[in-house]
Amino acid sequence: MAKARRICHLLFRFLAFSATLASVIVMTTSHERTSFLTLSIEAKYTISPAFKYFVIAYSIVTVYGFLVLFLPRESLLWRLVVALDLVFTMLLISSISAALAIAYVGKKGNNHAGWLPICDQVSKFCDRVTGALAAGFAAVIIYIVLLLHSIHTVLDPLLLRKP
Amino acid sequence: MAKARRICHLLFRFLAFSATLASVIVMTTSHERTSFLTLSIEAKYTISPAFKYFVIAYSIVTVYGFLVLFLPRESLLWRLVVALDLVFTMLLISSISAALAIAYVGKKGNNHAGWLPICDQVSKFCDRVTGALAAGFAAVIIYIVLLLHSIHTVLDPLLLRKP
Repeated sequence: MAKARRICHLLFRFLAFSATLASVIVMTTSHERTSFLTLSIEAKYTISPAFKYFVIAYSIVTVYGFLVLFLPRESLLWRLVVALDLVFTMLLISSISAALAIAYVGKKGNNHAGWLPICDQVSKFCDRVTGALAAGFAAVIIYIVLLLHSIHTVLDPLLLRKP
Repeated sequence: MAKARRICHLLFRFLAFSATLASVIVMTTSHERTSFLTLSIEAKYTISPAFKYFVIAYSIVTVYGFLVLFLPRESLLWRLVVALDLVFTMLLISSISAALAIAYVGKKGNNHAGWLPICDQVSKFCDRVTGALAAGFAAVIIYIVLLLHSIHTVLDPLLLRKP
């Protein structure tokens, strides 16, 4: 039982690592050059500070997720991992929210502010960003599940166990 | 000692509640109408989905922060509060990140996407949004401190206590 749980836990961590890695790769390799009237648009993730933040945050968490995979089972560092999970999950949530907000403006524009949508011009770039954000969202969900599981194990907040 | 800690804890919760309440009030009351050439701009928080999300998220957490203030000390619900703190802190981080990303575009614009900054036209609105975001940021910091304190108390992740 304990072994099955451990394998399940490692599997979740591996999925989280893969998802963050995938979103970093997809985001950094998304690139499209197009010309619109006389204007040449070159779209890549560096056009927006929010996308840069997304790539930096997800890269950090990818490295962390990779290192945690090799932490020995008996290590006392696992207690630190709960706190680190918390901090890095917040980092992921923060960066994906910022990137989503910008991606939304890129897709729909904003009439009130006079910001036009750019996805019609650079649709390939937009598709790739959407893919990166989807993978990033999956990573966030997995990290939240890992965190809530840790908290449940330690605190039993729903009082499911008998005292 | 225990009493001083409890008062300190309640004070922190009260500060968090005040900060979220202040940011909701400042954000919802920010409003400016201006005309630019032939264009009439009406700036309020509803112009951006990210700002609407910010107001909704902070309103929810304000209500939660208010209710927690009246939770009796002996209540078993305090264990649930740790998990709720976690969820609501994530909600705060997510919404403030999205709002910050949009506010940044409003302030600086984005050359690559052709989005012009609007803060020159509606500077009063921008100042108020900045105020709301500052109060919101303070609330996030306080909730993170509360969370890390809870985790430290329960888990001792830095192994400061002797086994």
